[in-house]
Formats: sequence, C-alpha cells, structure tokens
Amino acid sequence: MNILIVLAHPEPQSFNHALTAAASDVVKARDDEIRVSDLYALGFTPDEHSRHFRQRANPDLFDVQTEQRFNAAKASLAPDVRQQIENLLWADIVILQFPLWWFGMPAILKGWMDRVFVYGELYSGSRRFHTGVCRGRRAVLSVTLGSDVEACGYNGQEGDTRLILWPANYALHYLGFTVLEPRIVAGVRGGYSNEEAPSRRRFLDETIRDHRRWIGGLDEAATLAFNAPDDWDERRRLKPGAPVYHPFIRHRAEQSG
Amino acid sequence: MNILIVLAHPEPQSFNHALTAAASDVVKARDDEIRVSDLYALGFTPDEHSRHFRQRANPDLFDVQTEQRFNAAKASLAPDVRQQIENLLWADIVILQFPLWWFGMPAILKGWMDRVFVYGELYSGSRRFHTGVCRGRRAVLSVTLGSDVEACGYNGQEGDTRLILWPANYALHYLGFTVLEPRIVAGVRGGYSNEEAPSRRRFLDETIRDHRRWIGGLDEAATLAFNAPDDWDERRRLKPGAPVYHPFIRHRAEQSG
Repeated sequence: MNILIVLAHPEPQSFNHALTAAASDVVKARDDEIRVSDLYALGFTPDEHSRHFRQRANPDLFDVQTEQRFNAAKASLAPDVRQQIENLLWADIVILQFPLWWFGMPAILKGWMDRVFVYGELYSGSRRFHTGVCRGRRAVLSVTLGSDVEACGYNGQEGDTRLILWPANYALHYLGFTVLEPRIVAGVRGGYSNEEAPSRRRFLDETIRDHRRWIGGLDEAATLAFNAPDDWDERRRLKPGAPVYHPFIRHRAEQSG
Repeated sequence: MNILIVLAHPEPQSFNHALTAAASDVVKARDDEIRVSDLYALGFTPDEHSRHFRQRANPDLFDVQTEQRFNAAKASLAPDVRQQIENLLWADIVILQFPLWWFGMPAILKGWMDRVFVYGELYSGSRRFHTGVCRGRRAVLSVTLGSDVEACGYNGQEGDTRLILWPANYALHYLGFTVLEPRIVAGVRGGYSNEEAPSRRRFLDETIRDHRRWIGGLDEAATLAFNAPDDWDERRRLKPGAPVYHPFIRHRAEQSG
C-alpha cells in the first residue's frame, strides 16, 4: 500500500510533525510505501493565480476552471501542481495532517486544494462523486485542536469539529475518495520536542501511541456515509425520502432556522 | 459610516470585482467612506510563517499564537498585517467578498484570517465573542457560487451554503463582530466585463442591481443569532435548555449520526 501524508504546519518540531513521523514509522515497519508532502518545507504557493499558468485559453480574462482545464489538456500545469497530482494518484490512502486554524485548514492547505484539485484533471462535471477520478482510493483528515475536548464536542462553544470538517471531507468525496472518519486530537498547544511539563509530556506521548494504533488500523477504519447518485434529482436536489447523513444536506422538515 | 471590503478574486474583470465596484459606488454616493483591501492586487501572503515575525519570543520553536502575541506587544507585527488590522478597526462594517472554492474561502482570504486575526491584538482568552475586540462593528460574507441555486440550497448536492459559511461566520463572531446574514449569489461562472450572451448578461446586470439594493439596506439587514455568554458552562459546553441556533452546536438529543 502507498500512503501519502500532506502536512501543513510551519514548525518542524510541532506536534503535527511528530504525528507524521509516528505514522511514517508504522508504515515503514510493515513495508508499505510512504510519501510526505510537507507543504511548508516545499514552500508551496497557496494562492491560485494567473501567473501559475504557462499557457492561456483566454489571455484577456483569468477564469480558474477554464485555465486549469486548458493547461491540463496541454500538459502545461505548474510543476509543483503536477508533482502533487502525481502523489495523489500514487497513493492508496491520503492523510491530510493539519492544525485547525479559525475553524478551517491553514491557508497553505486550502490553497493546495484550490490549486491541485485541477478541473479537467481530477474532476469534471461528469467525473465527480461516485464517478470521481479518485474512486477506489481512501482519504482522511487528521486534525489537531488547541481547545480542550469539551469545547470542540457536539455541545462545545468552538462548534462540533466533526461538522466543521464537513466541507473538507466533502471536497474529498467530490473527487471520488472513500472518506474515513477524521482523526481529531484536542488540547494540543505549543510544540512537542520541547515540552517539559510532565503532565503535558505524558498526554502528548499517549497521543502519539494512539496515533500509531490508528495508523495501524486504517484498513478497518469507519467510513463517512454520503448520498448515492440515485438520491439526487435532475436539478441536484435530494429526492423526497432519501436518507440524510449530515445537516449540510437535508429535507425541508429538518431545516433549522 | 466606514465600510471595508476585503476582496479575494484573482481576476480584475471578475464578477466579484464588479460587485465590489457597485458597492463602492453606492457607499460613495451617500458620502460614507470606503476602503477596499484587494488581496490579490496587494499580493497578500497567505501562509502564516516564522519569517513574518521580526522578533521572536522563542527563536527555537515557532508557535503561532506565542509569536503573534509577542510581536503585537512589541509593536513589531508585519507591515501588511498591521495595515489590515488598521483597516478592520477603522471600519463600522466589514464585507468579505469572495467566490466559494472547494466549499470554503480562497486560500488568500483564509490566510488573511490566519495572519491578521492576531492573538493578543484582535482576541485573547478573555476578549472574544461578547467581549471581543470588534464588538459594536458589523461584518458580513458576500459570496459567489459557480453552481446553480438549487444545488446550493438546503437540499442541494453542493451542501447548504448558509451552513458551509458557518465556520467563517463564527470566526467573525469570535472577534466580537455582529454578523449579518450572508449575501449569496449562485450561478456565477466566468467573468463579467466580457460576458456577451444576452441571458447571462441580463442575469449579471440584475444581480448587480440587487447588490446595490443590498448594500443600500445593510443598516436594516438581519443578523445571525449566536448563543449568549450565560448559555455556556465552565467547560464551555452548552447548558441544558439553552437555545440552539445552528447544528454545529447542539444538545445531545439533536445530534445526528
């Protein structure tokens, strides 16, 4: 099996890096292959911009999808994007490893989605969801939170992290990935390597052990449920009676506020 | 009144730019003041990174919040961040104008949050939500969607846009802003200035007219409801019986899946 970890944290001594190293150890020990895309170490450029496109379908107006599709067809995508796409299509399992900042991914990882999920290459109107380019592959979010676990739970003031991750999980589902239940670690603050307080050190060490077990058990990990192709009508609305898996897509009776 | 528009679109002829220009016209016509932070035109750098900090509380390990607070206290924040904070604290109303990309903000705008919402300057543990630095000011998301309106509605395959925007709205609430109902325009594809198909042109022109009316009526715009300080217990959990405004924070009986 090929495992890709896309890592988005600016500090090499961070706990996110320690989790990545632990995952890498487990994968190597069982003779699977691993690649790590350390976006900060790569200096990955997050802003989708006309300057990234060597050719232009329309030199007078920059439309992202038009130029993504055109440059995909001309094999003239930016080298950093091409490398990231190759990694994605090499991997059987993709892990996005990041801290939650302002209720979302760090900008460098959001920009990785904006630039690498190329129209015409990784999706199109006819190749998405259950016909997506990445069907048969698995993807999973692995997230650290600064807040304590109660504040990030279903009734916590920071909002339910599992729901906050819905947009990112849905983007992975859009590409066709089978999306696994996210791995969420709350109460992570500061670094890892320099942590000296015994109680903090113990918590972090235990979490690393949990993470190794989690990586070891990915083959049996629970998957997120999404609606099937037949659940949608011709205008892409949920059909009456279709199941509801997440509050982001619902029947009118379930609409809140 | 002072109005700030933070604009995140890479193409000057885009519909997002046209909406910004229309809003600007309305504001100027009534002798209010307007500033536009065009993040792409500014070349705003989205990735929060140690290189942005001129001084370091800890030169051996980069922790974002630690260095944000330290540099805020030393008045050594990066000039681009300082400028954006000054704009925020100048404004009575802040409008974030952006296209929805992969169910979220473009990376350049997420990075604006990551870098500009500075710990120790715009929030702290004791200055957030109802005690937030930005209380008394209003903020609102103005979003364009490429998909058709049905696919972005409450039962649409793209997910309910109003809920997808919850994390960004909550970040604004976190700073203390009064958050207005978002302005959402679906069915926006390609550019604006070059649009020649009559039916498309008519749709875009009508949307611009709606936008002018919306800007003109911001003083009466509906606000989003959030829980009050007394709704939380000492571990930041929703108290039994407290109202529920969004599915991101809920009582156990309402938990879905």
